[in-house]
Amino acid sequence: MVAIDINCDMGESFGNWTMGRDDEVMPYITSANVAGGFHAGDPHVMRETVELAVEHDVGIGVHPGLPDKMGFGRRKMDATPEEVRDYVVYQLGALTAFANRHGATVQHVKPHGAMYAMLSESEDHCRAVMEGVLEVDSDLIYLATDMNIYEVAQEYDDLDAVFEGYVDLEYNPDRTLVLEKEKAPKDPDVVADRVVSIATRGEVEAVDGSTIDVPASSVCIHGDGPNAVELLERTHERLEEEGVELARLDELV
Amino acid sequence: MVAIDINCDMGESFGNWTMGRDDEVMPYITSANVAGGFHAGDPHVMRETVELAVEHDVGIGVHPGLPDKMGFGRRKMDATPEEVRDYVVYQLGALTAFANRHGATVQHVKPHGAMYAMLSESEDHCRAVMEGVLEVDSDLIYLATDMNIYEVAQEYDDLDAVFEGYVDLEYNPDRTLVLEKEKAPKDPDVVADRVVSIATRGEVEAVDGSTIDVPASSVCIHGDGPNAVELLERTHERLEEEGVELARLDELV
Amino acid sequence: MVAIDINCDMGESFGNWTMGRDDEVMPYITSANVAGGFHAGDPHVMRETVELAVEHDVGIGVHPGLPDKMGFGRRKMDATPEEVRDYVVYQLGALTAFANRHGATVQHVKPHGAMYAMLSESEDHCRAVMEGVLEVDSDLIYLATDMNIYEVAQEYDDLDAVFEGYVDLEYNPDRTLVLEKEKAPKDPDVVADRVVSIATRGEVEAVDGSTIDVPASSVCIHGDGPNAVELLERTHERLEEEGVELARLDELV
Amino acid sequence: MVAIDINCDMGESFGNWTMGRDDEVMPYITSANVAGGFHAGDPHVMRETVELAVEHDVGIGVHPGLPDKMGFGRRKMDATPEEVRDYVVYQLGALTAFANRHGATVQHVKPHGAMYAMLSESEDHCRAVMEGVLEVDSDLIYLATDMNIYEVAQEYDDLDAVFEGYVDLEYNPDRTLVLEKEKAPKDPDVVADRVVSIATRGEVEAVDGSTIDVPASSVCIHGDGPNAVELLERTHERLEEEGVELARLDELV
Repeated sequence: MVAIDINCDMGESFGNWTMGRDDEVMPYITSANVAGGFHAGDPHVMRETVELAVEHDVGIGVHPGLPDKMGFGRRKMDATPEEVRDYVVYQLGALTAFANRHGATVQHVKPHGAMYAMLSESEDHCRAVMEGVLEVDSDLIYLATDMNIYEVAQEYDDLDAVFEGYVDLEYNPDRTLVLEKEKAPKDPDVVADRVVSIATRGEVEAVDGSTIDVPASSVCIHGDGPNAVELLERTHERLEEEGVELARLDELV
Repeated sequence: MVAIDINCDMGESFGNWTMGRDDEVMPYITSANVAGGFHAGDPHVMRETVELAVEHDVGIGVHPGLPDKMGFGRRKMDATPEEVRDYVVYQLGALTAFANRHGATVQHVKPHGAMYAMLSESEDHCRAVMEGVLEVDSDLIYLATDMNIYEVAQEYDDLDAVFEGYVDLEYNPDRTLVLEKEKAPKDPDVVADRVVSIATRGEVEAVDGSTIDVPASSVCIHGDGPNAVELLERTHERLEEEGVELARLDELV
Repeated sequence: MVAIDINCDMGESFGNWTMGRDDEVMPYITSANVAGGFHAGDPHVMRETVELAVEHDVGIGVHPGLPDKMGFGRRKMDATPEEVRDYVVYQLGALTAFANRHGATVQHVKPHGAMYAMLSESEDHCRAVMEGVLEVDSDLIYLATDMNIYEVAQEYDDLDAVFEGYVDLEYNPDRTLVLEKEKAPKDPDVVADRVVSIATRGEVEAVDGSTIDVPASSVCIHGDGPNAVELLERTHERLEEEGVELARLDELV
Repeated sequence: MVAIDINCDMGESFGNWTMGRDDEVMPYITSANVAGGFHAGDPHVMRETVELAVEHDVGIGVHPGLPDKMGFGRRKMDATPEEVRDYVVYQLGALTAFANRHGATVQHVKPHGAMYAMLSESEDHCRAVMEGVLEVDSDLIYLATDMNIYEVAQEYDDLDAVFEGYVDLEYNPDRTLVLEKEKAPKDPDVVADRVVSIATRGEVEAVDGSTIDVPASSVCIHGDGPNAVELLERTHERLEEEGVELARLDELV
């Protein structure tokens, strides 16, 4: 049986400011990356996001960021491996308490933005975070956004790691992503085909027409894209047509 | 066997700013109330404080505060019961993750400053916090700073609650505390006698010479007082002379 | 010549989070209340908002809030008069520097949300802020949201004060406003008539049909209302029909 | 007449946390670098620091930092030149308002910690800040901590720039400073001689015994050093013996 997880960043509102359409997107995903209050989110948003995830039986993951709300966690900073690990541990714990209130647990860890980039570029930072996560709870799954990180994760026998693919952005031939300035609507068929291609063959067509390996068990969709819900609906249809099952990360490891 | 717990606020440093003498005080106490990063503390301070507590086998409690670092959590704010509960849940979870890294758990919850005062004055706020704590982990002990709070706690069958006495401040005859503007050194014999009196007879002498009930199983000492370590040393000696055992909160409930 | 100022809260975005439609609204107003970075706004948003105001020759005012971004400055807190004055002075100064970069100055001060409510309820707080404002720059205009505040302001000979009316909310007969949970679209004719009525006769019809005095030289419109631009367009038309001139606050005092 | 300015970082307390001994140090210095609330300081601390500076007729400068209180502004971050300029403008303005309340103005600008390092390493960042400062107030003096920055400043005809020397740290032969992990007490005679040497000859002896140029009109002393007051007292004595006058930065440009 072929199966795949759909993950999405959730809980990125803050105080009186709304970001994303979590209510509309949550029914279509299997794993939610919930902001931990450093780059986005706050205790109230986290509570609401956890409640929504529990209602839809969506796997709850922490999406920890750097302590830089003004920069949305997108500016790298000279923090030591130990400091970054502390930020992950703190936000992971905070989210866990909200999950526990509903008899749920935290399923996975996926660092956000500049923190992710720092882990990709510095193996010391990456190891510090992974070892910290393992020390807190060895059942946690590490959702790896690029191969640098995935390869480090695989060196830890105790750490379940899953590689993720992106389906609403184009890939360069070297498996980096073509980033956009403005979020444009995407073609639902193209996105849905990409999900099927990753789920069934572990590959996608890159922006130059070449085929590249994306050995992912999870795909990430941007919930704040202009037609995110449409992309998700079409993806669900295509997965059903192709006999691909949707499954939470914790059913895949 | 008569036994008592000594609790102290710990981990109140922040970034480059130091507060208190945690290293010197930790060896003398049995329960530490660790700031959760809202009114004081940060992820790095929390890690170090948890490590120090684990090293000395001190019970780890969360000391959650209002989100007001500039005011050190001492200014009441118009937050709803649900909002205050969210602040407690968040900080409790964050501390739990640091404890878990060392195979430890969080033992107790003791709200700080203006948050404590809000719970004392509003039963709705108090119940919201206690129910939130129970939902996260029903093994947690609620350390009650005044009788309003203690009485609400006792209505919850599942919630272990402990009343605490203060020994380095004077009591008024109505069991409120005589607050001081400046922290003056205290007489070690007076403080130590007060601990013994609370532990063995559940009473202290108030500022007017009358005897009042303080049915406490834990006493709080201010770790940033000018002679805190001396007070703690003398207290240890007196407890030993009187055959009173020191015990963590979780050994007393 | 009859004239009136239209003021609007601006610069309430924060980091990656957008609030309001400042670009669309700025062309229609004469005075902008710019958030100072405590309840909303940040240095980048303030720069952009000042640039936009300068471009449209709109009077720049500071809209200082309490240091509570998570609560959008809407939760009263136990801050002393001196503390609140410090928050106003700080945010006023910060905005002034951005204005100075463009050869502009800050025209007025209008406290936001819970800070405004605290000043209305406590004359000590109100006086501390007004005296602080005068000490910083005696040319500043105080934009008074209710009569409690306006009356205190009038006791200061050096302080120019302007009373403001609200035109996209209903008035109760006691001149308090009927607050709404959800921002609904408003009837442009009703709003425009209210502006004219305030400008020409200093009165509006309250929710019970009675006529009440609103001796205002400025009217506030909520820029994040669902049809704010439509309300402003219709208001401009009606003012022209009635021969009422639009003028910045500093042309009215 | 030979003259020199003594500058010192001031106002680095935050909320309930105290740093430095501003009360003791202020009488001995001529220019104070006042933290602007981003890496240290807050509106209340800024008010108190400005009052203390005014009382002692000390020149008030802003010591702007990166928005990273947890890291005390010592961690470089990927902020653009424009973003860093906005942080300087904001903090400069805020301090100016506190100065204005006392009829004073801000005399100088000296970026703190990692912000200073970023300006030293990136000419784009350095120019953005200097141009922003000039736009706000062309009377401001730029206090340059290293030669990279000083040289950029000198390219602006309108910008008064002063180079500063350090006297309680050792110089390497390349005019970089020998940083210490722990602040140790310094020999008052050595420090005082260094001040005299800089003031009268524009040079100091480096750690290897060689003589290096330090063409400084101001010397910086760390006010939180363990014997800062003693160093300052001895320095005052030696300057008097040598006939070197103490003068504020604005008397030297």
